[in-house]
Amino acid sequence: MRIACALANGFEDSEFKQPYDALKQAGHEITIVGMEAGQRLNGDKGRETAVVDKAFAEVSPDQFDALFIPGGFSPDRLRSQQAPVAFVKAFFEKQKPVMAICHGPQLFITAGTYKGHRLTAWKTIQGDLKLLGADVVDQDVVVDRNLVTSRQPGDLPAFIREGLKLLEKVPAAR
Amino acid sequence: MRIACALANGFEDSEFKQPYDALKQAGHEITIVGMEAGQRLNGDKGRETAVVDKAFAEVSPDQFDALFIPGGFSPDRLRSQQAPVAFVKAFFEKQKPVMAICHGPQLFITAGTYKGHRLTAWKTIQGDLKLLGADVVDQDVVVDRNLVTSRQPGDLPAFIREGLKLLEKVPAAR
Repeated sequence: MRIACALANGFEDSEFKQPYDALKQAGHEITIVGMEAGQRLNGDKGRETAVVDKAFAEVSPDQFDALFIPGGFSPDRLRSQQAPVAFVKAFFEKQKPVMAICHGPQLFITAGTYKGHRLTAWKTIQGDLKLLGADVVDQDVVVDRNLVTSRQPGDLPAFIREGLKLLEKVPAAR
Repeated sequence: MRIACALANGFEDSEFKQPYDALKQAGHEITIVGMEAGQRLNGDKGRETAVVDKAFAEVSPDQFDALFIPGGFSPDRLRSQQAPVAFVKAFFEKQKPVMAICHGPQLFITAGTYKGHRLTAWKTIQGDLKLLGADVVDQDVVVDRNLVTSRQPGDLPAFIREGLKLLEKVPAAR
């Protein structure tokens, strides 16, 4: 599967690195999509760095089978721009697999895609989602059709397990 | 005036430092209130550091005349805990001056104090507030009774000017 990883500065280090490695190891092809190709991004805890492979401006959601959104301050940075918000929306419209952890679902608030799916998120974002009337549950991983969500780094094993399981079930778009 | 500055790691450097210096210079007494007294906090951009003077657990909102909330990732960290949320709420209940910039109003979402005041915030938080039905405007500074809010570092001159003006008007609680 061709997976887009939506990433900006201040991502939560392990929430990027562990699923990224696990997805690659399972044979998937991951492209880091960010605001500027070649930009070096730093994890919030200073443990991991990443380089943007492609800018949102130079790719189309059609080129990918699934989307992965790590947490940290990265999702809030991404949702301040129109291109990443439109990008996220497109995966929901085509019901392609989306994996989001921690602050990742902040992008769903801005994209309006928090409606109609049961999901979880980092506790403060759970609070925002509840106020917005979303169907939020507080558990390590929530799978609802195309959407896999988790709350925090401690949930990574469950998040990776269910993400990989979903990707096996869904046929690639190409 | 005795001013509490609610602060956690990842605060936006200038949004903490510039108002902090301006408030001190105007003769106000500022206490940095955080999760743990003595903790050294780092700005998101690595330009400023701050040390927590008092923990939320060891102060009461009654000891302060006003509240200042810098932006960055700090407000989201604070609102993940009950004590800072209750602390913020108390200033609204007593209608004491509150200055918040950028991501600061995220604390108002969790505390429920975003209702009943016209306000502004960082653009992504403006989006959250709009979805919640808040009275949001997109301008450099918004003053509504006890509340002064701004959007971003570029608004700091207006934020500081209106914050100081409000503090002059309000009598100290002691």
